[in-house]
Amino acid sequence: MPDDATPKVWAGRLGDETSPIVEEYTAGIDVDLRLLPGDIAGSLAHAAMLNAIGVLTSAEHDAIVSGLERISDEIKRGTFAFQPNDEDIHTAVERRLVELAGPAGGKLHTGRSRNDQVVTDLRLYAKGACRDLTLAIADLQSALLLRAEEHIATVMPGYTHLQRAQPVSLAHHLLAYVEMLQRDVGRIGDARARCDVMPLGSGALAGSTLPLDREAVARDLGFAAVSANSIDAVADRDFAVEIAAACALLMVHLSRLCEEIVLWSTSEFGFVSLPDTHATGSSIMPQKKNPDVAELARGRTGRVAGSLTALLMMLKGLPLAYNRDLQEDKHALFDAVDVTRSTLEVLTELVAVLRFNVDTMRSAAADSALLATDVAEYLVQHGIPFRESHRIIGEMVRRTTTSGRTLADVTLTEWQAASPAFEPDVLGLFDIAGALNRRDRPGEPGPSSVAAQLDRVRTLIDETRRAAGPE
Amino acid sequence: MPDDATPKVWAGRLGDETSPIVEEYTAGIDVDLRLLPGDIAGSLAHAAMLNAIGVLTSAEHDAIVSGLERISDEIKRGTFAFQPNDEDIHTAVERRLVELAGPAGGKLHTGRSRNDQVVTDLRLYAKGACRDLTLAIADLQSALLLRAEEHIATVMPGYTHLQRAQPVSLAHHLLAYVEMLQRDVGRIGDARARCDVMPLGSGALAGSTLPLDREAVARDLGFAAVSANSIDAVADRDFAVEIAAACALLMVHLSRLCEEIVLWSTSEFGFVSLPDTHATGSSIMPQKKNPDVAELARGRTGRVAGSLTALLMMLKGLPLAYNRDLQEDKHALFDAVDVTRSTLEVLTELVAVLRFNVDTMRSAAADSALLATDVAEYLVQHGIPFRESHRIIGEMVRRTTTSGRTLADVTLTEWQAASPAFEPDVLGLFDIAGALNRRDRPGEPGPSSVAAQLDRVRTLIDETRRAAGPE
Amino acid sequence: MPDDATPKVWAGRLGDETSPIVEEYTAGIDVDLRLLPGDIAGSLAHAAMLNAIGVLTSAEHDAIVSGLERISDEIKRGTFAFQPNDEDIHTAVERRLVELAGPAGGKLHTGRSRNDQVVTDLRLYAKGACRDLTLAIADLQSALLLRAEEHIATVMPGYTHLQRAQPVSLAHHLLAYVEMLQRDVGRIGDARARCDVMPLGSGALAGSTLPLDREAVARDLGFAAVSANSIDAVADRDFAVEIAAACALLMVHLSRLCEEIVLWSTSEFGFVSLPDTHATGSSIMPQKKNPDVAELARGRTGRVAGSLTALLMMLKGLPLAYNRDLQEDKHALFDAVDVTRSTLEVLTELVAVLRFNVDTMRSAAADSALLATDVAEYLVQHGIPFRESHRIIGEMVRRTTTSGRTLADVTLTEWQAASPAFEPDVLGLFDIAGALNRRDRPGEPGPSSVAAQLDRVRTLIDETRRAAGPE
Amino acid sequence: MPDDATPKVWAGRLGDETSPIVEEYTAGIDVDLRLLPGDIAGSLAHAAMLNAIGVLTSAEHDAIVSGLERISDEIKRGTFAFQPNDEDIHTAVERRLVELAGPAGGKLHTGRSRNDQVVTDLRLYAKGACRDLTLAIADLQSALLLRAEEHIATVMPGYTHLQRAQPVSLAHHLLAYVEMLQRDVGRIGDARARCDVMPLGSGALAGSTLPLDREAVARDLGFAAVSANSIDAVADRDFAVEIAAACALLMVHLSRLCEEIVLWSTSEFGFVSLPDTHATGSSIMPQKKNPDVAELARGRTGRVAGSLTALLMMLKGLPLAYNRDLQEDKHALFDAVDVTRSTLEVLTELVAVLRFNVDTMRSAAADSALLATDVAEYLVQHGIPFRESHRIIGEMVRRTTTSGRTLADVTLTEWQAASPAFEPDVLGLFDIAGALNRRDRPGEPGPSSVAAQLDRVRTLIDETRRAAGPE
Repeated sequence: MPDDATPKVWAGRLGDETSPIVEEYTAGIDVDLRLLPGDIAGSLAHAAMLNAIGVLTSAEHDAIVSGLERISDEIKRGTFAFQPNDEDIHTAVERRLVELAGPAGGKLHTGRSRNDQVVTDLRLYAKGACRDLTLAIADLQSALLLRAEEHIATVMPGYTHLQRAQPVSLAHHLLAYVEMLQRDVGRIGDARARCDVMPLGSGALAGSTLPLDREAVARDLGFAAVSANSIDAVADRDFAVEIAAACALLMVHLSRLCEEIVLWSTSEFGFVSLPDTHATGSSIMPQKKNPDVAELARGRTGRVAGSLTALLMMLKGLPLAYNRDLQEDKHALFDAVDVTRSTLEVLTELVAVLRFNVDTMRSAAADSALLATDVAEYLVQHGIPFRESHRIIGEMVRRTTTSGRTLADVTLTEWQAASPAFEPDVLGLFDIAGALNRRDRPGEPGPSSVAAQLDRVRTLIDETRRAAGPE
Repeated sequence: MPDDATPKVWAGRLGDETSPIVEEYTAGIDVDLRLLPGDIAGSLAHAAMLNAIGVLTSAEHDAIVSGLERISDEIKRGTFAFQPNDEDIHTAVERRLVELAGPAGGKLHTGRSRNDQVVTDLRLYAKGACRDLTLAIADLQSALLLRAEEHIATVMPGYTHLQRAQPVSLAHHLLAYVEMLQRDVGRIGDARARCDVMPLGSGALAGSTLPLDREAVARDLGFAAVSANSIDAVADRDFAVEIAAACALLMVHLSRLCEEIVLWSTSEFGFVSLPDTHATGSSIMPQKKNPDVAELARGRTGRVAGSLTALLMMLKGLPLAYNRDLQEDKHALFDAVDVTRSTLEVLTELVAVLRFNVDTMRSAAADSALLATDVAEYLVQHGIPFRESHRIIGEMVRRTTTSGRTLADVTLTEWQAASPAFEPDVLGLFDIAGALNRRDRPGEPGPSSVAAQLDRVRTLIDETRRAAGPE
Repeated sequence: MPDDATPKVWAGRLGDETSPIVEEYTAGIDVDLRLLPGDIAGSLAHAAMLNAIGVLTSAEHDAIVSGLERISDEIKRGTFAFQPNDEDIHTAVERRLVELAGPAGGKLHTGRSRNDQVVTDLRLYAKGACRDLTLAIADLQSALLLRAEEHIATVMPGYTHLQRAQPVSLAHHLLAYVEMLQRDVGRIGDARARCDVMPLGSGALAGSTLPLDREAVARDLGFAAVSANSIDAVADRDFAVEIAAACALLMVHLSRLCEEIVLWSTSEFGFVSLPDTHATGSSIMPQKKNPDVAELARGRTGRVAGSLTALLMMLKGLPLAYNRDLQEDKHALFDAVDVTRSTLEVLTELVAVLRFNVDTMRSAAADSALLATDVAEYLVQHGIPFRESHRIIGEMVRRTTTSGRTLADVTLTEWQAASPAFEPDVLGLFDIAGALNRRDRPGEPGPSSVAAQLDRVRTLIDETRRAAGPE
Repeated sequence: MPDDATPKVWAGRLGDETSPIVEEYTAGIDVDLRLLPGDIAGSLAHAAMLNAIGVLTSAEHDAIVSGLERISDEIKRGTFAFQPNDEDIHTAVERRLVELAGPAGGKLHTGRSRNDQVVTDLRLYAKGACRDLTLAIADLQSALLLRAEEHIATVMPGYTHLQRAQPVSLAHHLLAYVEMLQRDVGRIGDARARCDVMPLGSGALAGSTLPLDREAVARDLGFAAVSANSIDAVADRDFAVEIAAACALLMVHLSRLCEEIVLWSTSEFGFVSLPDTHATGSSIMPQKKNPDVAELARGRTGRVAGSLTALLMMLKGLPLAYNRDLQEDKHALFDAVDVTRSTLEVLTELVAVLRFNVDTMRSAAADSALLATDVAEYLVQHGIPFRESHRIIGEMVRRTTTSGRTLADVTLTEWQAASPAFEPDVLGLFDIAGALNRRDRPGEPGPSSVAAQLDRVRTLIDETRRAAGPE
């Protein structure tokens, strides 16, 4: 250790000669950097409370506050300098504070352990991350909503098993994603609520013998409650797992949207075109225009699921209370949040600029086989049991497929030969717009149902944004 | 196909000669069996609605109801017979219904697709599973609570890094698990609420052209709402992922408890003994007594995390709406729920019969090094900055360790040589009961704090049981 | 315990009153059933060795052999009856053996623990599973090979980013899967080799004080070697992880093939049709014909990856040597192998019956944009740097796309205006068959390269089958 | 785009106005940096071949070589400057090359696509990573071997179910880890062999119309073979999955070692002490000394398993050939390799400095219950069937446990009352050193067996180092 270096916080016990490879392996400063704002805020609140309960004099408190403000300023300017002996950002801040505030700085860690400090910092980060993710989801929902509003009357084939199934509107299809995202909003909100509990004051695992006022600190930091059990408080990383799980499922939703963007951009589907600004080319093939953003987002889905696996496996079989394994929570949580948030942002822009090829969609939906169910349900309404109707139409599909015709080509005579229940109006079923109009009850793809969905979703997005509150 | 077999529901279109290996690969009857009760309930509600909107006559409805009741009865008695041509339980029930109720049976599938039917069945199952899991958690919480009530005054070492850290009470330690489980209750409750939405009426993906009354069916089946978008309704398996994620984290909690039971059962710790009824022996070593239940539960944690991985990966990159990949939801969800529930049950019993070796715990906690922080905080209360106090005590620990003494052996003269701030009452710190009493603010291990925790938890468990409602 | 029940193997130490819920939770008989053949084989080999070293008399040995043969027979006929007190199949076999062979049966477990016995059984199973998987892969490779042989001249678009890129042959495309599968053969072979080590004789973890002849038992059971360290031998489940990992990657390969079958079956691509025998229909939509097998196989990919996650997480952080957590190895390994093997089998049949729509493929490949790289490389051969060529052709693509023309429509004058390096033969580039012929070096899609690939692959498959050896 | 910026490689086709958020989302330069050495090497080999086949003149080749050398030099000095328009490191290098070498630089990309270039670079990295990992494993094996050599006669309890089971030597226990690591060497070697195939020349997916000499490039770059199918070559990431899987299992092994270091460092076990240089202290508890390195390594196990999950999920369901999803391979592979390698390194040092508390181990092993199996096997050697022996000794354990005695306290009279087969020499069994000597056949913990294991392992480590070859 150089003569002028600040000793480690535990140098009294162990001395200060740590093996360099151990220092490197256990260091987490790079990852922890983004905890700094929360760390400073937590220290300010802790100091105010120590002052209120008489552990700090007002002069000491003032020195600490101005020291922390200076540190905060240094961090913002990028002039804050880490020293080789700083084990982590928490000790770096404390070391710098002693430099700035003198012995008073050495009083800040009173009644506090890194065990409760670091998880408080991480919960502050996590609450902010939930807010950011929620607003980013609302933005993507808004983008989808805008496009849905334009395409209430755009008919396209709905698919099951990637086979054309029945006609739907593009608006209805896009709104399916808005619904998924709404559940994501719910999950992240629930995770945030369970995260909104302050562990500070739990010390290493057994609280403190000092008369700390935890409620005051919690109020100051904006936590809804203080933790109920000090051992659980330092051992718990549920909130990290829960947010990572919510992100993993959200990314799965986005992967489905991306799969469709990739599919729809093919020459074969041709349902969407990407503007040149949102596609990339090939280094070798001059003609290529690729939906890279959608592919990459799809590929990053696994990465977030991988972070979830990492967190669950990290926690498995750990005895209480704090174990150093928990340091790995940050790498996984930060990466899950970063990937998810940036994917939401890039897709928000991508959705906004997609060019839907309405005519191509309409042509694809014009395949009269998509109306086979309508014909079967027509028979039901004329008294034929559904199973029988299904069989009659199934055979008609088979016959027309073999002879290269479509259901729309079948004559009334032929229909009536298949079942006497057919009346002349059967031929009117093969109008696509009519098919949408026939599906207009709650949740269905018809225009009034979609209008109702749009209203509902608009309200939900507004509520989400309101509930997220100020930064 | 044997002459007398019922044809497949889509035999009109494709004929009925399916390759045997395809039949075997796609069959899911074994797994689906437990959906049967929900399937019957769903069919009864659907039939009632079809009757109300005039698709079924009252006579047809009566025939269907008595047919379904008969089938339900056959299932309960174990006499229900599947036929080789039954693709799944849904078609088996329909096939049998036609046998029992004649042509009316063929009308039941009107306005319904297997796509919306199967996910309705699965949501009914999932809601019940959430209720069962919640009650099983409450039972384990109660078992922990009972043991905590017995051990408010049982002192043991609290551990961090598996090193003895500070004295806590066994009650406080056990209550840490109750807190974890309380968050599990919250997560499962949230998952259940998002699951409580009825997809029936969404058809294959585009609803129906018939005037279905979805709200009536939802009321009948006890769903809180109907799904808002038919495409999302058949494509969504969020609820399965969310329940599996909640189970995976719950199992991680249980794995931590099990790790401690295993550790505490060792000769080295000796904190608990298992009754012979809850341990197993060795086939070769006559002296062995093993905590197999705890080990097995810990080992099954990975299995539930694996089910979560399976579900996320299954859904990744699937285009809308229904794809047959989704059939795999059941294997993963059922296994996650079964493993989690049975683990909760076996641990509830295990916790109840554990024998805590109170004297061994107390001896382990008597290590005066566990009070080093108390001495440091004593100095703080006598005006020494914490960092300085920490250093002073750290050096004293180092010195006593080297000389084979403990902190409790240090004389007043030595303490005062280390810091003039020490007064004679420092020697009184080395009383373990006193150490607990000094930690008695909210969340801390002292007896009044623990009493308050017990009250809080008792209330929460009651609320959980009440909220779970009747079966 | 009923009076006449056989006591547990460790009843001397713990008594025999195990809690029913503990019995149920720890039971593994259902899962372990398929270990029975290996268990009997292992016992026969062990008994022969005990006889050879004098622990068993020849009479005792004869009694044990005929007892085990009878048990083996009972198992084959399905008449073997488990008793409630049988902890697992190993103790069930031993219990039955004592019934059949008298006291001699009680000598079989000499020098053997369940710890080394169960992992020996599992390794015997695993070696067989590797063989089965390898042969199933070879069968799928053969099916692909047969189809490739038919389609050396079938031109289709090769895709990158799911955008049409350059013309390839269907044979070349199918052979890409054969190459992937060849690496799977390699991985499973390597896993099998590492699995081919006999742990028997390691006892509980410390061998035995008896003069066991492990080499003789290994020879008898067909193991290549005996384990080198008894602690490792009972604690190790690497082979299960390694086989599960090989299966997970193999399933990922199959998921890619299935994704293409699903894509190619769409109305939009139309590259393949499924025979009715290998597709399924819809319960509601009479026109539907779905590629369910390919979807389900794709969906089951996650399940195998989930088994791998389960195994890794089970093993994480386990101290040496045997822990009961390891019992979970079987559920995960059996399921991974079963799913992978059945998927290989069903896809082998599916590949054989796929109907490739050669004309549709050819039309899709006729898009002259796919030859843009060829034109750029033409310019390179006429002295233009590739970057410059790429830019020239890129601009030509842009111009023709805007004006609704294709590269094949560009006149010689226009080409020469773009670059004076163009000569009249540029117009000859737009012949698709020629494009394949221009790519005929090793690894390329041209016909001679593909013929060479077919030869190579044919030889590899033969070698695989030969190396797999007799059952 | 600023006036003087170099255009994107595909600007001819799409123009050059890419959305900033798309640029940021798709950029991979930070991650790709470590591919640079392989990228330069690959370009040099490609250029040499282009010169040999006449695509480059010698002057052009010279200009390219000196340009690439200059770039390589800039990279080493840290003066290489990326430009905002550089899509990735490959285009950055090409852009800089054009600056340095003029138009000749524009010829380097002839017959090469980023699709084959990037996977060639990654394979070069992966081969090096396999070598590094292998040597790092050998170093850890050597460290374990050295400690084992010191402790052939150090007796300790062997554990199953974390219960003391039978006496083993510390050497034998440490050698169990050497065996595990030897299998890791095997897996990584197999992965490296399958990785040793050069894709370059596969172009985008369909090779090239130019007469490339792929074999020459492969020789130049040290690849054992060229890829056999161009589509597979650009679509395949098996090697990344396989290395990540090998790393995940290796980390699981290390997590078991770390679990034991944590356990053994407890006050309760007390089997090892950490030097102050390799432990850390507490910010609040002055007495603490924590095994942070072992905990952190254990916690990072999940991270590597998470990378494996990410890779499998990324690949699942991707159609052929290249898709941009594959860009995510690098983040996962690099992290898996980095974490695994650094963990190997830090544990190599930790193993070297661990202080084994030999007396504590010996005392723990002195528990005579650990010899119960020896007594049972003694009876077997005196003609009693093992099951009967097991029962006799089990009852004796039960009786002595109840009365607070140990097996060593049982008198000859008592033994003979339990079974007349006991002779006076039974009392000699309770000598621990003798117990080890009785277990001295291959794989057992006795001194000669361990000596043989040490010889075997020494040879294997030497072979590993030799096979790894020069850097």
